[in-house]
Amino acid sequence: MSKLTDVPKRILIGRALRSDRLGETLLPKRIALPVFASDPLSSVAYAPGEVLLVLSIAGVSAYHFSPWIAVAVVVLMFTVVASYRQNVHAYPSGGGDYEVANTNLGPKAGLTVASALLVDYVLTVAVSISSGIENLGSAIPFVVEHKVFCAIAVILLLTLMNLRGVKESGTLFAIPTYVFVAGVFTMIAWGAFRALVLDDTMRAPTAEYVIKPEHQGLAGFALLFLLLRAFSSGCAALTGVEAISNGVPAFRKPKSRNAATTLALMGLLAVTMFCGIIGLAMATKVHMAENPAADLFRDGVPVGPDYVQHPVISQVAEAVFGEGSILFIVLAAATALVLFLAANTAYNGFPLLGSILAQDRYLPRQLHTRGDRLAFSNGIVLLAGAAMLLVWIYGADSTRLIQLYIVGVFVSFTLSQIGMVRHWNRHLSTERDPAKRRHMVRSRAINAFGAFFTGLVLVVVLVTKFSHGAWVALLGMCIFYATMTAIRKHYDRVAEEIAAPEGPPGDDIVRPSRVHSVVLISKIHRPTLRALAYAKLLRSDTLEALSVNVDPAETKALREEWERRGIDVPLKVLDSPYREITRPVIEYVKSLRNESPRDAVSVIIPEYVVGHWYEHLLHNQSALRLKGRLLFTPGVMVTSVPYQLQSSEAAKRRARRQQEWNAPGSVRRGPAQERAKESSQST
Amino acid sequence: MSKLTDVPKRILIGRALRSDRLGETLLPKRIALPVFASDPLSSVAYAPGEVLLVLSIAGVSAYHFSPWIAVAVVVLMFTVVASYRQNVHAYPSGGGDYEVANTNLGPKAGLTVASALLVDYVLTVAVSISSGIENLGSAIPFVVEHKVFCAIAVILLLTLMNLRGVKESGTLFAIPTYVFVAGVFTMIAWGAFRALVLDDTMRAPTAEYVIKPEHQGLAGFALLFLLLRAFSSGCAALTGVEAISNGVPAFRKPKSRNAATTLALMGLLAVTMFCGIIGLAMATKVHMAENPAADLFRDGVPVGPDYVQHPVISQVAEAVFGEGSILFIVLAAATALVLFLAANTAYNGFPLLGSILAQDRYLPRQLHTRGDRLAFSNGIVLLAGAAMLLVWIYGADSTRLIQLYIVGVFVSFTLSQIGMVRHWNRHLSTERDPAKRRHMVRSRAINAFGAFFTGLVLVVVLVTKFSHGAWVALLGMCIFYATMTAIRKHYDRVAEEIAAPEGPPGDDIVRPSRVHSVVLISKIHRPTLRALAYAKLLRSDTLEALSVNVDPAETKALREEWERRGIDVPLKVLDSPYREITRPVIEYVKSLRNESPRDAVSVIIPEYVVGHWYEHLLHNQSALRLKGRLLFTPGVMVTSVPYQLQSSEAAKRRARRQQEWNAPGSVRRGPAQERAKESSQST
Repeated sequence: MSKLTDVPKRILIGRALRSDRLGETLLPKRIALPVFASDPLSSVAYAPGEVLLVLSIAGVSAYHFSPWIAVAVVVLMFTVVASYRQNVHAYPSGGGDYEVANTNLGPKAGLTVASALLVDYVLTVAVSISSGIENLGSAIPFVVEHKVFCAIAVILLLTLMNLRGVKESGTLFAIPTYVFVAGVFTMIAWGAFRALVLDDTMRAPTAEYVIKPEHQGLAGFALLFLLLRAFSSGCAALTGVEAISNGVPAFRKPKSRNAATTLALMGLLAVTMFCGIIGLAMATKVHMAENPAADLFRDGVPVGPDYVQHPVISQVAEAVFGEGSILFIVLAAATALVLFLAANTAYNGFPLLGSILAQDRYLPRQLHTRGDRLAFSNGIVLLAGAAMLLVWIYGADSTRLIQLYIVGVFVSFTLSQIGMVRHWNRHLSTERDPAKRRHMVRSRAINAFGAFFTGLVLVVVLVTKFSHGAWVALLGMCIFYATMTAIRKHYDRVAEEIAAPEGPPGDDIVRPSRVHSVVLISKIHRPTLRALAYAKLLRSDTLEALSVNVDPAETKALREEWERRGIDVPLKVLDSPYREITRPVIEYVKSLRNESPRDAVSVIIPEYVVGHWYEHLLHNQSALRLKGRLLFTPGVMVTSVPYQLQSSEAAKRRARRQQEWNAPGSVRRGPAQERAKESSQST
Repeated sequence: MSKLTDVPKRILIGRALRSDRLGETLLPKRIALPVFASDPLSSVAYAPGEVLLVLSIAGVSAYHFSPWIAVAVVVLMFTVVASYRQNVHAYPSGGGDYEVANTNLGPKAGLTVASALLVDYVLTVAVSISSGIENLGSAIPFVVEHKVFCAIAVILLLTLMNLRGVKESGTLFAIPTYVFVAGVFTMIAWGAFRALVLDDTMRAPTAEYVIKPEHQGLAGFALLFLLLRAFSSGCAALTGVEAISNGVPAFRKPKSRNAATTLALMGLLAVTMFCGIIGLAMATKVHMAENPAADLFRDGVPVGPDYVQHPVISQVAEAVFGEGSILFIVLAAATALVLFLAANTAYNGFPLLGSILAQDRYLPRQLHTRGDRLAFSNGIVLLAGAAMLLVWIYGADSTRLIQLYIVGVFVSFTLSQIGMVRHWNRHLSTERDPAKRRHMVRSRAINAFGAFFTGLVLVVVLVTKFSHGAWVALLGMCIFYATMTAIRKHYDRVAEEIAAPEGPPGDDIVRPSRVHSVVLISKIHRPTLRALAYAKLLRSDTLEALSVNVDPAETKALREEWERRGIDVPLKVLDSPYREITRPVIEYVKSLRNESPRDAVSVIIPEYVVGHWYEHLLHNQSALRLKGRLLFTPGVMVTSVPYQLQSSEAAKRRARRQQEWNAPGSVRRGPAQERAKESSQST
């Protein structure tokens, strides 16, 4: 339907659109790994410590269960990685947990997963930042002394960076992540070498401390419960594994295979680091307690409330590398940085999920618009606000915050895996090729086991952590769920209300027969003259200029100038004894409509365009209010004829800058050309 | 120029406009007195005390100067009243100090007066509320123990009442004011009767206290300075006298004479009460000190910081009526109430002055609109915020706040009186009738004396109070002055920029020759069909529907439905690989303009109208942003075609309620019919 002459224009516009986004390229595996793995890898900074903490409740003797718990975490990690490798193959377009659950299990499951993920993003920020601050604090005491302040400052910094739209670069992620991984492996290797070859005795700073068990000689069910709780805490190491499944389009070809390989590599790195740290913690005799102030004793005396319990990774590093050594400090810094990067991933994931939810009308439609700064900002501010609240309430204590974590992760793991089983069932019902069927049956088995195992862990987490804080996470999920359901209902109701009836166009819509145009005039100046010129172009059935008499002298001057200039549009003046503008105009428009109800009224308002918000306060306020009220009057259309003042140039430049802004997180979503491919069929 | 058929409609609309303001009637003197006099009369509740406080610095012996100071205040009061009687006669339309100074002395003097008055309104609230709380506190100890809290609570209450638009009724003012006046006169009469006829000894609660003078045996210049300071404080009794000059139109006919009579009556009441209270304070041996904690001794011991110094009026009432007697309590309550009413007058005066200043473009134009709730609200919130800040900083201590007061009052008194002298000079230069000339010469003499005396007092106030707090008031005035000058400059610059050139219309304005209409479409539903129907009515040169492809499936469905329905407008689809809406549309509009720069583009946007702000968040956001950006594009007009959803009914009802709202303070401005009379000449 479009004119032929549009083609060159389209090409031009298309080019103009794309030229400023040249930075986008596909990710090689060596960059993809740090981009996607900073979140799961960073969790080894706190997960091993959490296991020890919980075990300490039954006394230091319970520490000998930690290898078994590590084994359970490793098995779980392999299961989850294997399961998600199936997701990645099945949804090469990037099927996140929400989409998998939504497509295969229906909208309610999808919405549950979405709520869980939203809560989890908030907790990722809160936990990662708190843990990062604790790790930084092991090298810089000031930081840990002002924990809450520093944590909130870092959140604010991340928020501002993301609001300004700092471009996420793969390299930015790569350096700290690789330094961190290399540091931990060096530590494990050097520790093993010292212990096994040199036969050194490495002593953690807390090696001589004594733990007073809260429950002496736990056995039977109570011990099992404690071990399950320790395992639940260790599961924190699994958070963030699912991120790759969203990001398949960002990989180089063959996309799915590369993503699956990266996933496997990440799992391998994570479990090695996790086990290595647990092993070194045992070897260097790290002592950690859930309530160190009361339960940790030094020389027979409780350490008291001023004692700062350093993270297990920093205690081990101190034992292996030596206190205050350069390697110790580098590792502490890299750990903190990786944790902050992990928090940053939530800043990307939150708006992305919001955009997908908006597409399904669970959130305001506008959030669907990609690269929309405002939509993005709202998400960022919401995320940061919630995270800061949690950090403040929980005193930036990662141990207490982790109690809330993991619930959401395992809700989405479980539902996603159940969804995958359904996915394979559906495909198996139509697939006839035996080789493909075999493959699918295998995949289904993996996903089924994944669903079973993660479901089991979810139950364990819920049972062992509910009263410790998991209820807060569940409450958050319920709030998100209810809000999104309400929004969807609203959209559905409106859609029903505005649905166009079938049949020839406008069958039941009263078709206006004529249109009266009214140009609002306050004075004669360029903006009004322009508005009059434009109004004439529109060739409506009647055209008149309308002025409200709030000041008799001004009105008189207006009339005189009108005649002197010989403006060929009749001028009508409305009296306004109360110096109001809105009411007389509305009443007049209504009276026009009453006279001929089938006609439409077009109100044309000259408007100033200024460059600064404070200038805006000085102009257009009456016009704005009038427009707002006119919109409630049926049968009216409201036209603004803008007049750009010189100062508007500033705002124009600002708007242009904003347009060139890149939404953070685009690197992990792959280049737009790829995603746009499907769209290019139309026109 | 308007059609003949409009006349009956005009009458109808006129009637509709007026019918809901029937409450407005002209004020008889007995109601006008309390309405306008609550402010000046209430100041006798604190002014006598302030005189005694300052005198106490030189020891209790200096109290015997107080009758002389009272005499000076009385002379000043008569001067000011006599001067303003001239104003009232000269400006029967209600010439406030700002208008008198502006008209006769030029805009800078006018703006100075306006700044002084704005500061004064803030201080009226702060001083009156603080003093009211202290008076209430003499009967209810709780109030004075939580002075700041109570004062801020009362300010908040007044603010909410005024924001909601509680209608100011004459009766509401009349009752407490008359009770207060009657109470004070009863007290004076009964006190005089007891002292002179019964020969009772009445003792104030502080009669036995001893004041330690801060400066023993002051003499010469130092004593004169102290007496002048005491006089300055006593001048607080004159605040609010000028209010009547704004309100002449609210009086019954003969307006000017009635206003002048009321003014005289008010002056008489004020000075009688002022002198009576000073006299009784001397007779009952009230002892007050500026720093009671250190300078006031009971039984040879300083009273200490916990001592609450009650206002002179309540101490006298206790002495005359007896502690805790019913009359004492009634008088305390009436005093507090009158002081709160006095504060309320500032809530009316502030927005009224703002509206006049807006007319002269010193404040945003929109404030000019009378009965405009938003404009009014902004003024109210600004006033309340500033007053609360002062109350909080000065601990709701009326004595400390009064140091800031009075400067503004006397700035406006002096400039207004100088302006009146100029006014008579101008009239004398043309007037030939000897009787009228005589009258004018007499008036000029009165105003000249008024200008001289008030100017002298202004100098005295500035000299004696500058370091005590008057500088704060001056600073406030400078801030107001600078802001208003800047706003005026901005308006002037814009007016110059947009001024229409002389000559035949549109000589230099590029006259667009054709108009391209573009209707934005997202889906086919009633709002879009309506927008299309309206767009067709406008008969522009070309018309096309425009859709942005953010989702290929939706776009395909749109195309199919478009063809199935046979809509006879070409549909154009813009690609948007980044799922943006704004940018492709802007680029397209720009390309249309580039193709034919002399043409105008009309962009028509279907818009939903909803009833609640949260619904608004769910709709129109993309349209809103697009409209904002389009306004910066030259040669474009933007048309909204509203579609009222069912929920919009709620908003419509709300808007109607708001429209029926009456701006507080209308009672003192007279009925609108009167003011509208001048306006009715036009049309």
